[in-house]
Amino acid sequence: MSGKKTSNPIAIVASSASPRTKPSIYPEPFFTRMRKREKRPLGDIFGLRNFGVNLTRLAPGGESALLHRHSKQDEFVFVLEGEPTLVTDVEEITLSPGMCAGFPAQGIAHQLVNRTDQEAVFLEFGDRAAGDEGSYPRDDLEASLGSDDKWVFKHKDGRPY
Amino acid sequence: MSGKKTSNPIAIVASSASPRTKPSIYPEPFFTRMRKREKRPLGDIFGLRNFGVNLTRLAPGGESALLHRHSKQDEFVFVLEGEPTLVTDVEEITLSPGMCAGFPAQGIAHQLVNRTDQEAVFLEFGDRAAGDEGSYPRDDLEASLGSDDKWVFKHKDGRPY
Repeated sequence: MSGKKTSNPIAIVASSASPRTKPSIYPEPFFTRMRKREKRPLGDIFGLRNFGVNLTRLAPGGESALLHRHSKQDEFVFVLEGEPTLVTDVEEITLSPGMCAGFPAQGIAHQLVNRTDQEAVFLEFGDRAAGDEGSYPRDDLEASLGSDDKWVFKHKDGRPY
Repeated sequence: MSGKKTSNPIAIVASSASPRTKPSIYPEPFFTRMRKREKRPLGDIFGLRNFGVNLTRLAPGGESALLHRHSKQDEFVFVLEGEPTLVTDVEEITLSPGMCAGFPAQGIAHQLVNRTDQEAVFLEFGDRAAGDEGSYPRDDLEASLGSDDKWVFKHKDGRPY
């Protein structure tokens, strides 16, 4: 058959993807707060570069991220299972399967928290705009995306972690 | 409460979003081939700019798009209901709920086709990289994204539609 061959898979069962080897890139004490979160990167498997996709599972008590907003990158979540709470710096909303939420750059700060006794599973998407910065209104943390595509975390007074 | 206010909604039931008013931007005879497809834009509702998200429903016999690939933009689909067939220029795969597929720029050509007698529903994501071109290996069509963010379609010999 004609067409460009590829070494990436064409389609997979999302839940069969491997969990991320490093559970979080936050410094302590924030790293430990993410221990009830499991992310399975999906986009990388197919060789996507322009945006990332994760299948993310929150155990009871888990949180998807610190409350945060991005300066340049957009984000989107779609709930598949469970009833995670969308916490923002404006209001809180209980989500359920089939609901979605989007977070434009420089919009409201947000995180998903699982306050139920059942797992919550959702898809999360974010683009990879260069020069992005993350701000964390409730925590002593600031993040900036370097030209090497690695995040650098600092205290709000500029001290490194 | 503190935080930036926004006029966009924070979360919605995806299936309650309005269908796209113009069902397809393809010229005829391709426009008519998309009549069994319904797209509900989700990302735009939240003010996302860097990528688009659609909740797309294919009636039996419907197709998601012409078989195509992009030159710069990545795409990703996640199946929610039904069993659409992923048709590519390499192979065909029957998808089912919980399966996903990703299509990097310059990768294999692809489309989803509903060969069942049940509806198929999936999420589709694509970034908005400038200067993108669409190529259609099975149809007399070429597409280029102008600096005004509008697609221009031509025959393969360069004649406009």
